[in-house]
Amino acid sequence: MTYDIATIPGDGIGQTVVEAALPVLREAGDVYGFEFDVTAYDWGTERYREEGAMMPDDALEQLEPRDAILLGAVGHPDVPDHVTLHGLLLPIRKAFNQYVCKRPTVLYEGVESPLRGYDGGDIDFVVYRENTEGEYADIGGREHRGFDNDVAIQSALFTRQGVERIVRQAFRAASRRRGKLTNVTKSNAQAYGMVLWDDIVEEVATEFPDVTVERLLVDAASMDLVRRPEEFDVLVASNLFGDILTDIGAVISGSMGLAPSANVNPEGEYPSLFEPVHGSAPDIVGREIANPLATVLSGAMLLEHVGEPEAAAGVRDAVRAQLAAPAAPRTPDLGGEASTFEVARDVEARL
Amino acid sequence: MTYDIATIPGDGIGQTVVEAALPVLREAGDVYGFEFDVTAYDWGTERYREEGAMMPDDALEQLEPRDAILLGAVGHPDVPDHVTLHGLLLPIRKAFNQYVCKRPTVLYEGVESPLRGYDGGDIDFVVYRENTEGEYADIGGREHRGFDNDVAIQSALFTRQGVERIVRQAFRAASRRRGKLTNVTKSNAQAYGMVLWDDIVEEVATEFPDVTVERLLVDAASMDLVRRPEEFDVLVASNLFGDILTDIGAVISGSMGLAPSANVNPEGEYPSLFEPVHGSAPDIVGREIANPLATVLSGAMLLEHVGEPEAAAGVRDAVRAQLAAPAAPRTPDLGGEASTFEVARDVEARL
Ligand SMILES: CC(C)[C@H](C(=O)O)[C@@H](O)C(=O)O
Ligand SMILES: CC(C)[C@H](C(=O)O)[C@@H](O)C(=O)O
Repeated sequence: MTYDIATIPGDGIGQTVVEAALPVLREAGDVYGFEFDVTAYDWGTERYREEGAMMPDDALEQLEPRDAILLGAVGHPDVPDHVTLHGLLLPIRKAFNQYVCKRPTVLYEGVESPLRGYDGGDIDFVVYRENTEGEYADIGGREHRGFDNDVAIQSALFTRQGVERIVRQAFRAASRRRGKLTNVTKSNAQAYGMVLWDDIVEEVATEFPDVTVERLLVDAASMDLVRRPEEFDVLVASNLFGDILTDIGAVISGSMGLAPSANVNPEGEYPSLFEPVHGSAPDIVGREIANPLATVLSGAMLLEHVGEPEAAAGVRDAVRAQLAAPAAPRTPDLGGEASTFEVARDVEARL
Repeated sequence: MTYDIATIPGDGIGQTVVEAALPVLREAGDVYGFEFDVTAYDWGTERYREEGAMMPDDALEQLEPRDAILLGAVGHPDVPDHVTLHGLLLPIRKAFNQYVCKRPTVLYEGVESPLRGYDGGDIDFVVYRENTEGEYADIGGREHRGFDNDVAIQSALFTRQGVERIVRQAFRAASRRRGKLTNVTKSNAQAYGMVLWDDIVEEVATEFPDVTVERLLVDAASMDLVRRPEEFDVLVASNLFGDILTDIGAVISGSMGLAPSANVNPEGEYPSLFEPVHGSAPDIVGREIANPLATVLSGAMLLEHVGEPEAAAGVRDAVRAQLAAPAAPRTPDLGGEASTFEVARDVEARL
């Protein structure tokens, strides 16, 4: 079996972590009996500066036939974020209908959480984030710029289809896991979009009698991820709320450098995209100290998605074993002094 | 001097904490030489059930002449939140142009933060939250309810005047404090409202050359409040983002039961409202174990606002001394067994 994979290393440490993680995935192929055919795309801010666009006009056509996409990071301090993101990451999520953004938070053995009293194994939840509409919809405008009556409207869009499909995926995940779903909204203050969301959660819940549903407001949920993270199993949230909750998830799991993510089109009509939650980290760029594990773990999600669950588990076990081994190399974010490549090679060896 | 104060104890533990906190404020009056004329309003969910409205039609007229309002909490498990809130708290914030929601986070000596490695004195920041528009604007709608094309739009509104005034207040606070302002937006994904906000922060910054401005995206800010809370001084954020950040602030300061807040109309055209950040806590209602300190500290903010800064400092010092005293009474949220009233009386005695 050969998988046709696109990589978009992108900007900053994105390039380093993708370069380091790819050999781990290839090694998993050797061990579990498959191959990768990798096409690397040099899209990103450098290209934007030279050619005025983050990606070429036919970028989506080039990506569409691939089995999956592995992305490093996009963003550069000299270019406004809305340019880099609306020029690459966000259009891919939308065009390929990657409506599930799946982000697990696991506190691994051997990793110190910033939360007092939590040890490896204590935290294990996954956020299902809606990934194509909600607060990220490109609806709104601004008028009278610079004048006293300068005003902007930013509209969040919630469609039944858009909400129902992410909610159903989250319920499925909960019934495969520990049977608990936390629905995070802000219906007390946002009576249109969030109430539609809550209504649909109630409807879909009837299809999953084995799943217990908890409702939390986003402010309370943000607090509870710090106060009682062990009680969460699956959380489902809108695009913006999922963004916030998963960053809190990343920090409580000990390092942003350990948080993977998958932007999935579950029907497989389009390729899905896998990327670390962290950004391009301009502050440490070029030093080869970025933690490659978030990208390696995103690669494991990619393997699972293309149909290699054993290889995915193998990669995850190798990461788990490395983190649990006191003498194994660690990047500075985990208190070590190893380089990106040393850490990745050590995972490879453990496979 | 006599201050004309309205209290709205509201629902659940709101009633207990206001009842417990008032004598502390009266005692501060005795010590510092002023009096309170208190009018208590029994508005809330019980009234809603009996008379169909949380407050009477002329509620705002009744409140308007007061020097300040002390609120407990509103919300009841049997009544949808959007009813209780849009029927009382949110209309007061809007009608009285309480455009500054000021919420300090202080980790007091003697209180354990859930964050590893943080001790009393290590965390001290304040969030300036926009309190009248943004994501809480009542703009939007829903169509085709129940059909396949069911769709909802929820629009956030940002006006120059609305943003400029909160931003300016935040800059003022930063220049009185440690000179650092963190501006929290999500301009990379929300290119209308949040970009207007960022523009205005840049403009107003020119009036405050002594203040250093940091920009953070809301996801990163939520993470950083857990990862490096000691580095924050003043944060400024929209209505929704401020809501989320201040709940994270409350939890890292050791207990929701310690987090005060002020909804301020800085020009004094209308009364300002002071309330604990916590809600009506239906789970512990009637047991007299709610921590009164968030309300006592909100009362200190009230004293400061009406022009009694020494009395405010006195109340704060008494709370600080109580929390630092190992043998002093504590409510269960802080690991003790004392009642709401025991804790309040102990603060009173320390005055
Ligand atoms: C970069 C940004 C637009 C993006 C998002 O908000 O979705 C990022 O924070 C993420 O979580 O993938
Ligand atoms: C109750 C709710 C509407 C309110 C808000 O979101 O403003 C509360 O969470 C708060 O922070 O005061």
